[in-house]
Amino acid sequence: MRCEIVAIGTELLLGQIIDTNSSWMGEQLAIAGIEHLRQAKVGDNLERIVVCINEALERADAVIVCGGLGPTQDDITREAIAQVMGVALVHQPQVAEVIRGLFASRGRVMPENNLRQADVPEGAILIEQRTGTAPGLICPVGDKVIYAVPGVPYEMKEMIERAVLPDLVRRSGAPQVFVSRVLRTWGESESRISELLDPRLVALEVGGNPTIAFLASGIEGIKVRLTARSATRAEADALLDAEEAEVRAVLGDHVFTNEDLPMEAEVGRLLVAQGLTLAVAESLTGGLLASRVVAVPGASRWFRGGIVSYAGDVKTDLLDVPEGPVVSEAAALAMAASVRRLMGADIGLSTTGVAGPVEQDGEPPGVVWIGIAGPDDRAAIRIQLPGDRERVRQMAVISAMDRLRRRLLG
Amino acid sequence: MRCEIVAIGTELLLGQIIDTNSSWMGEQLAIAGIEHLRQAKVGDNLERIVVCINEALERADAVIVCGGLGPTQDDITREAIAQVMGVALVHQPQVAEVIRGLFASRGRVMPENNLRQADVPEGAILIEQRTGTAPGLICPVGDKVIYAVPGVPYEMKEMIERAVLPDLVRRSGAPQVFVSRVLRTWGESESRISELLDPRLVALEVGGNPTIAFLASGIEGIKVRLTARSATRAEADALLDAEEAEVRAVLGDHVFTNEDLPMEAEVGRLLVAQGLTLAVAESLTGGLLASRVVAVPGASRWFRGGIVSYAGDVKTDLLDVPEGPVVSEAAALAMAASVRRLMGADIGLSTTGVAGPVEQDGEPPGVVWIGIAGPDDRAAIRIQLPGDRERVRQMAVISAMDRLRRRLLG
Repeated sequence: MRCEIVAIGTELLLGQIIDTNSSWMGEQLAIAGIEHLRQAKVGDNLERIVVCINEALERADAVIVCGGLGPTQDDITREAIAQVMGVALVHQPQVAEVIRGLFASRGRVMPENNLRQADVPEGAILIEQRTGTAPGLICPVGDKVIYAVPGVPYEMKEMIERAVLPDLVRRSGAPQVFVSRVLRTWGESESRISELLDPRLVALEVGGNPTIAFLASGIEGIKVRLTARSATRAEADALLDAEEAEVRAVLGDHVFTNEDLPMEAEVGRLLVAQGLTLAVAESLTGGLLASRVVAVPGASRWFRGGIVSYAGDVKTDLLDVPEGPVVSEAAALAMAASVRRLMGADIGLSTTGVAGPVEQDGEPPGVVWIGIAGPDDRAAIRIQLPGDRERVRQMAVISAMDRLRRRLLG
Repeated sequence: MRCEIVAIGTELLLGQIIDTNSSWMGEQLAIAGIEHLRQAKVGDNLERIVVCINEALERADAVIVCGGLGPTQDDITREAIAQVMGVALVHQPQVAEVIRGLFASRGRVMPENNLRQADVPEGAILIEQRTGTAPGLICPVGDKVIYAVPGVPYEMKEMIERAVLPDLVRRSGAPQVFVSRVLRTWGESESRISELLDPRLVALEVGGNPTIAFLASGIEGIKVRLTARSATRAEADALLDAEEAEVRAVLGDHVFTNEDLPMEAEVGRLLVAQGLTLAVAESLTGGLLASRVVAVPGASRWFRGGIVSYAGDVKTDLLDVPEGPVVSEAAALAMAASVRRLMGADIGLSTTGVAGPVEQDGEPPGVVWIGIAGPDDRAAIRIQLPGDRERVRQMAVISAMDRLRRRLLG
């Protein structure tokens, strides 16, 4: 079973929208074990869309067409697929009813052009619309198949997961469940993690079950993705549980979550569990640490606030940083202790360092001091990060959160 | 002159990397007036790359191949293009010398596999490598042409601008200069700006010179892109000057830059010009405002720091916010005045509001109070923003900066 993806839309060619849909679908196909060798983007032109789908269908067994299912005149994917299938478009009154109902339920008048979405190629199976107005399509062409899904990302994802992937897996003749679990790690480089897991990679090999894949994701940490296939979800979960235990035995507390959540969510979980609150003092990260914390749902339960001390005398006057270099252990300790006191928090966390491009206080770009102050303890560590200003800032944020996580773990 | 783009890399198909390169190149081709109808992505497989390039070359006059020029065994774009051209790869000692020199200048030992990058298809013209190790290629095929550029975005962009676009424009037989200028605006919706500029759009029409395009870019504002073509750069600039004056006559001070820079850079420019410094107090934006400010080069000249007052009693204790609702005029005014005083700044800027999803202090999601305090003046305004939590936060940041910009303009 080979699958290709065709993304429709002149705005994709013009660079007005970046085609993240194809990337996401490619990843899902890989996880599901469906071979996938080509992707194409083509503009809103009937002849060119027909040619593009035909070419893909010659090479592959299945083609996913994404976009061009909307109500406007330049949404012509339905017409193109009908041409490829050699059939007419047929008006489906029950689809029109659903669209009318959607508008009515939102108290809005339906523009008439929405009814175009009820015209579907003869012989196509509908994928019911649940989040948008356009239904998806499963269109048999001989022993091959064309799927059509909307270009709106959340509508597309919902239909791919609910209807397209199950149909593809069924057609591929391997009635299996694919389940993935992502362990996120911090504290070692991707190459070191790969080295540490090498015995597991050999044990599992290509085509093994489960499989392991790595993905360096910058501020999100290094992701280790385990994928198991089995006849049932329960069996797949059992395989993943066993493999996760093996990986954790090697990587220890470098693994900070198995729920694909950011570091700050895990820190929040630990703080809530221990009944503690946090305040942050930032120099080089300049508010980035605080802004990531407040993006965690429910952060108000454990986050008190922060101080961005960008100017040197703000550090000395407001945060009692002693005179001297501000990229230093003394500065990191004073910042953490002072923000803890000023904000009435249980724990203060601080960052001070050199984002670059030039050195500061005799320290080269990438050097960051992280300070942590609790009710009875203070500590600071010095780390060296790679990359440009923006990357150093991002890495400093996850590194600071990771230090706090390890302290909370004891 | 028709052009297609082929992006090379299994990691693109697997969704491990999102192909932003093709989007950027598509935009550049559109600006340069080069017709561009298809894009493809293909994995690191010699046979499939050759087929994909051949197909593109049948339909188009020019094909840009991006990626697969690196030193490793799966970088096989050079081999594929040689097959398409029907020629051999030839080792170019002078390219090898440059690569050796690059490693030596960084004090690093060159892995031998880097020399693969000195093997180029016979008859190809080299695009000198300036930012990376791999040279680009201009490969004539009859009266058509294949370009090869690296997949590393900044290497790719530099080569496209320096060598590929000029060559394409020359081949297109229209020896013209295309120059674009982006005006960024804030204060009106995209549809309202489009309406206001409607007389200009009619005056310029499709195929006019200059042309106008709109692009809503969220936190970056709404962009109005003017593109002029002419025989010389000076003539194009004159056309753009005249059109910019027309647009500004309609949009007035909604236009905040003609240099495609973010709002915070413009605010910084005004502050420096007036010899003023800034401090910020943030509630719902939670450090996002400060983090965007410190990303502006040279922000240390005018930014003192900020306070993130997330917990209610941090607002009252540290920022002297009066008892009562914190999403209010009184709170915004107190936050701005207090942070100005605490940080020793000339101006204090504050945000307090409801990010959502539920109401707070009787105000619905999206309501934001922005406060500004100067030496002798205080003011606050209430705005209502659309979107989810993250979008409300982002829009609150640019809205707050815009209020400050308008105050600085007088």
